Amino acid sequence: MRSTSGWRAEGPAVALRRAALERRDLRPDDLAVRVDYCGVCHTDLHSVRTHDEAAGRPLVPGHEFTGVVTATGPEVARFAVGDPVAVGNIVDSCGECAMCRAGQENFCHAFPTLTYGGTDRHDGSTTLGGYSREYVVRDRFVHRLPAGLDPAAAAPLLCAGITVWEPLHTLGVGPGTRVAVAGLGGLGHLAVKIAAAMGADTWVISRSPEKADDARRLGAQGLVVATDPARTAAARDRFDVVIDTISAPHDLGPYLRLVAMDGTLSQVGHLGPVTVETLDLLIGRKKLSSAGSGGIPATTAMLDFCAEHGITADIELLPSARVNEALDRLGRGDVRYRFVLDMSDLDGPA
Amino acid sequence: MRSTSGWRAEGPAVALRRAALERRDLRPDDLAVRVDYCGVCHTDLHSVRTHDEAAGRPLVPGHEFTGVVTATGPEVARFAVGDPVAVGNIVDSCGECAMCRAGQENFCHAFPTLTYGGTDRHDGSTTLGGYSREYVVRDRFVHRLPAGLDPAAAAPLLCAGITVWEPLHTLGVGPGTRVAVAGLGGLGHLAVKIAAAMGADTWVISRSPEKADDARRLGAQGLVVATDPARTAAARDRFDVVIDTISAPHDLGPYLRLVAMDGTLSQVGHLGPVTVETLDLLIGRKKLSSAGSGGIPATTAMLDFCAEHGITADIELLPSARVNEALDRLGRGDVRYRFVLDMSDLDGPA
Repeated sequence: MRSTSGWRAEGPAVALRRAALERRDLRPDDLAVRVDYCGVCHTDLHSVRTHDEAAGRPLVPGHEFTGVVTATGPEVARFAVGDPVAVGNIVDSCGECAMCRAGQENFCHAFPTLTYGGTDRHDGSTTLGGYSREYVVRDRFVHRLPAGLDPAAAAPLLCAGITVWEPLHTLGVGPGTRVAVAGLGGLGHLAVKIAAAMGADTWVISRSPEKADDARRLGAQGLVVATDPARTAAARDRFDVVIDTISAPHDLGPYLRLVAMDGTLSQVGHLGPVTVETLDLLIGRKKLSSAGSGGIPATTAMLDFCAEHGITADIELLPSARVNEALDRLGRGDVRYRFVLDMSDLDGPA
Repeated sequence: MRSTSGWRAEGPAVALRRAALERRDLRPDDLAVRVDYCGVCHTDLHSVRTHDEAAGRPLVPGHEFTGVVTATGPEVARFAVGDPVAVGNIVDSCGECAMCRAGQENFCHAFPTLTYGGTDRHDGSTTLGGYSREYVVRDRFVHRLPAGLDPAAAAPLLCAGITVWEPLHTLGVGPGTRVAVAGLGGLGHLAVKIAAAMGADTWVISRSPEKADDARRLGAQGLVVATDPARTAAARDRFDVVIDTISAPHDLGPYLRLVAMDGTLSQVGHLGPVTVETLDLLIGRKKLSSAGSGGIPATTAMLDFCAEHGITADIELLPSARVNEALDRLGRGDVRYRFVLDMSDLDGPA
């Protein structure tokens, strides 16, 4: 086994503590990656808050990270030591089902192996995430980090970025498409940047009118104040695509009413049950969809697009030792717009 | 005012009673229609069961009927006395909003006038439906009944038919599309007929395996038993379009899992809140939509399609005096597949 260190949930999981971790010895198609930067996703916060140590599964969060290849197994041909790389929220899949064959490993019928909290397909161990100085991962689930992208600010592309890229790309957003992004957080600010770069007429929907300047700086035309009935009434049936990035459970009705005839509301911020009035879909033939990940080819396409358009996340970079502060502030919505942990402090003494 | 008779909710609304009704004198663009046949829709049953007489609004159900023009206002050019016609669930709209201008009067921003239980845009009266011997209606909301369609069996096309036509047509169903229809009732059996006539590979999903022969007779390839885990597992990700016509609240998860990658579940049978797990949408990039009506141009197109393909509903025709029996049996699911009331008995003594 290989030794590294990282941030693990221990005791009543209200905080992460630094711990020594083991990584597997490299299989023939594995890479070892020195993790330099790892984004802090809402899923991480949820996992920490709901972690049940008694269940016996260790928790090391982190599923959007960048770093450098430090070792390769004998069958690895696409990567060499020193290559800058990026890893997202899945690290393996069956490779044989129709979804895997179609490059939608994220929908693997045998369920993809999650980057953390998953079960390794070979040894049955629980996967430990990117809040760590080293990660060992199968080569086909590693992305080359395109030149020109800052590796710290690019880390969130691997989860937040692909999550909003999927509906924008799949729904054919391009010049002239009217797109609204509900919620201006980690997902939302990237949705604005990507939609604007696609040429869409892009707006932000937010309860916080003071975010209007930021919305424009990110590429939006303006901001619709979600709590202002006159403004939202004027925006009725106005957007072909609404990307709803709001992470707390909320009424979808007001957002569906902003969707144009035959348009789509894509729910990307909240995983869990959502309730919708069928009349809100029926009137205007609107559609509800959801997204939360992408396959390997889509992730590559997203990274290439972001490199071409100079898109990365707006981040607050913290030493990884401040991970609990980052999670706490994320829980209060106090971040513009994504925390990224600098893992280099794990090279020093604990 | 014009005098006619019909079936009205009275007292604690557990049953309809025959009553004398008034219809307005013809406006310049009105027709008077002798109602010959009126279908019995689930909405009628719901309206009767929830009718609150104390609220002061009379209830005469019925919003899918066929008949013959008996009088025309001076501005009516498209119809003449003696023309066979059909009326669906809307009878007026603002005519000025973007939806009306686009021929989507059913989505009128000022809300369309419903065929019963609506509020007339001119005199503020409550509209009384087609369980009646005469209906007075604005000409542009009247459809010519195509030659060759039996007027009794065609009546349900005006609500059940257009409701399932909308998603099938809008989602581009045609040769090769894999369509499943959940629930084989009034809506479902028409969805099967129309999808099969569109050339789709059409299946029925039902809890009742004994409906397999009927499913094939209606044009389906076969039936997937919804309660058989092995059968439904085999049908996973198999259908581009699932038309869910089940009228009772139910878990959408098992039906969403039958939808193929990038496919759509269209909920047409149940109006009200539905709860969906976002993961059931996310995995496979599936979409949820709903339908319950159509605009005037779409209804015309649906009627033309049905005439071309010889499609009408499979009905049980009853004298209108047996309306309460029909509603009672509909509530128990005891109908194959749509009750239609013959209104000619209203010409006799009460």
